[in-house]
Amino acid sequence: MGKIFIKGCTIVPISGPVIEEGVIAVDGDRLYYVGPANALPAGWQADTVIKADDKVALPGLVNAHTHAAMALLRSYADDLPLKEWLEKKIWPREARLTREDIYWGTKLALLEMIRSGTTTFADMYFNMDAVAEAVLEAGLRGCLSQGLIGFQDEDGGRLASGVSLVKEWQGAGDGRITTMLGPHAPYTCPPEYLTKVADTAAGLGVGLHIHLAETKGEVADIQSRYGATPIALANRLGLFELPVLAAHCVHLTAEDISILAEKKVGVAHCPESNLKLASGVAPVKAMLSAGVNVAIGTDGAASNNNLDMVGEIRTCALLAKGISGDPTAVPAHQALVMATLNGARALGLDKKIGTLEAGKKADLILVNKRLPHMMPSHNVEADIVYAASGNDVDTVIVNGKILMSGGEVKTLDVEEIYAEVKKRAG
Amino acid sequence: MGKIFIKGCTIVPISGPVIEEGVIAVDGDRLYYVGPANALPAGWQADTVIKADDKVALPGLVNAHTHAAMALLRSYADDLPLKEWLEKKIWPREARLTREDIYWGTKLALLEMIRSGTTTFADMYFNMDAVAEAVLEAGLRGCLSQGLIGFQDEDGGRLASGVSLVKEWQGAGDGRITTMLGPHAPYTCPPEYLTKVADTAAGLGVGLHIHLAETKGEVADIQSRYGATPIALANRLGLFELPVLAAHCVHLTAEDISILAEKKVGVAHCPESNLKLASGVAPVKAMLSAGVNVAIGTDGAASNNNLDMVGEIRTCALLAKGISGDPTAVPAHQALVMATLNGARALGLDKKIGTLEAGKKADLILVNKRLPHMMPSHNVEADIVYAASGNDVDTVIVNGKILMSGGEVKTLDVEEIYAEVKKRAG
Repeated sequence: MGKIFIKGCTIVPISGPVIEEGVIAVDGDRLYYVGPANALPAGWQADTVIKADDKVALPGLVNAHTHAAMALLRSYADDLPLKEWLEKKIWPREARLTREDIYWGTKLALLEMIRSGTTTFADMYFNMDAVAEAVLEAGLRGCLSQGLIGFQDEDGGRLASGVSLVKEWQGAGDGRITTMLGPHAPYTCPPEYLTKVADTAAGLGVGLHIHLAETKGEVADIQSRYGATPIALANRLGLFELPVLAAHCVHLTAEDISILAEKKVGVAHCPESNLKLASGVAPVKAMLSAGVNVAIGTDGAASNNNLDMVGEIRTCALLAKGISGDPTAVPAHQALVMATLNGARALGLDKKIGTLEAGKKADLILVNKRLPHMMPSHNVEADIVYAASGNDVDTVIVNGKILMSGGEVKTLDVEEIYAEVKKRAG
Repeated sequence: MGKIFIKGCTIVPISGPVIEEGVIAVDGDRLYYVGPANALPAGWQADTVIKADDKVALPGLVNAHTHAAMALLRSYADDLPLKEWLEKKIWPREARLTREDIYWGTKLALLEMIRSGTTTFADMYFNMDAVAEAVLEAGLRGCLSQGLIGFQDEDGGRLASGVSLVKEWQGAGDGRITTMLGPHAPYTCPPEYLTKVADTAAGLGVGLHIHLAETKGEVADIQSRYGATPIALANRLGLFELPVLAAHCVHLTAEDISILAEKKVGVAHCPESNLKLASGVAPVKAMLSAGVNVAIGTDGAASNNNLDMVGEIRTCALLAKGISGDPTAVPAHQALVMATLNGARALGLDKKIGTLEAGKKADLILVNKRLPHMMPSHNVEADIVYAASGNDVDTVIVNGKILMSGGEVKTLDVEEIYAEVKKRAG
């Protein structure tokens, strides 16, 4: 840590217009100044100076929904019907995952996330204490939840482990780790279990991370079992009285969209996973118009198959236009807001991160714009959204600490991770 | 040129199954051997040896439809209604483009294409002799056509320039340059003009490159003017008696699809441009099922906004699943076939390129797989399609010549291109 001075960059602060030839001053874990060069107070001295003439500074990206450890299962099973993919491939393989596998699979994911500009992610998996350890080491920010399958939790052991995660890890790593309870979905958690989890979360003062309305089949199933859509059911059960991070939300009624807006549910839109598993396309334009807080997530690497948020932003913006028939839907700036500030808000972190403003935590990335696909640079926000990829990220800073510089990740041993995941991939 | 020996790589030959720890021998402009290491004839000596233990070899990618020079207009206008985008932004800007602008815009595009693994592209624009010059220098393969707007060609000057391109450039650059005539579309070329262009192409022994059925509006317009869909009209006019490369083909009837299959029309599917301009989503699964030769193109950088074919393959495969509701649609191998062999066939080059087989021209790429998002590598074809990006391409060879090695393009002056396009971007 210490004082970092970044000079000469184009700044996309998200909270305001693009700043050309700007400077960013970082003091400890916070942004001290973000703006034009001439306005920085004289006498402010940095320990580290970063020349960033060919770089674009943005808030670190927020991956609002993933299962990091599934990086170990990348390309393990693809191009299969959903049921066969889950029941014959993913679930049996997951059943054999050890705590160590999850630790190393997560480290691979965190390496990929840092390299592609993600500074904060929301994760739901199991053995989440192993994930928390990996997050501590890697240096980024994680909002972690133990996945809870109600139908397999008759003795309450799973909920207890979710509670332990909250009690042991909330606020760890200088506040980089936050927690939620993670009831998996209405089709794996019966109503009374969902209510119990919600009551427990309320008692702990944390929110919920849940999958909702991912597939048509799920919606039909919940409708026939409980006489309500997944969104309406969650609302009826009182879940939305808490802060809720709802992944997917693909198949929605107009009434569902109103509920999501009114109850300030954070939606993690996962366009690439939804396409790959043929779940469908979420009504992003309609949700945004209704005032829903829509963030962006990659989902796990078994159904994506990468964790590149820059690419996910692009897919989100392109798909919203192509599906709605409106080329003005989700313009470049809005897509960037979704992947930063909306993500922060969905994770309950928007007071701390999500924009580049003095006083916020110093979570930022520098993207290289001296690349063929970023030239001649008529519009930097459009270049980032429509032309860039995660590989263009050069520097990553989280909580005032440089995690990557010149494309080299400083907090993780790349060769060790490759060796471990190769060994554990079978 | 000379003899190149690539050893230790994973080979995705497209024409057959993946080969682990394979070798590739290049002799002059041709592939001399592709296969397991132990089968290479003893005594074969190379001038250049490439160690490729962490690389995947694939046929060079074929971008079946673009307007290369429009790289100069990347992020010049985005997120606008189609009519406003074209009439207020793109067309007025294009009217001001000089021959030199087109030359430098094309060089920027070729730099980006080589860097992201494209070795052959089909281009339609104007001042195409400037494009041909750039292709000669850059070293890749181009199938070039002068765009012909029939409604602006009363004196036949445009058609004459298209004919000149064919006569002067067909076969140039040791056969790297091929040509077609480029009637822009049925809505810009009246029927009698299309017939005239087709007759001229027949006389020259070349094919046609045309935009067909890109938007709903176009289909309705052509239907009301001529009582036929764009595909049926082109067929009625006899265009499909020639080899035809048809870009887009988004809005098709079942009858249209039958015609495309029967007449062996090469379709250049451009999923990202079609999404970005909100044109819609082409029925790729239905076309492939009917036996249509579907290739992949990026379209120009003003409507994409990059020329990354690796990303385009990914979008093609994901979108086909998400839109058809079938997660088995366009599996990884098929997506790779579309971007290589199908592209080659659509450009009339499948006897020369499109697969890695002894005797074919040596057009190949090496993709780095020692990267976080390519680990742990359960399935290399799935990793390339679903996780890779164009930035992962390390080495590019065209016609036996190394155009890029270690990510460094050898045939183009990167700094000069950046300076020229910056100067001309206004």
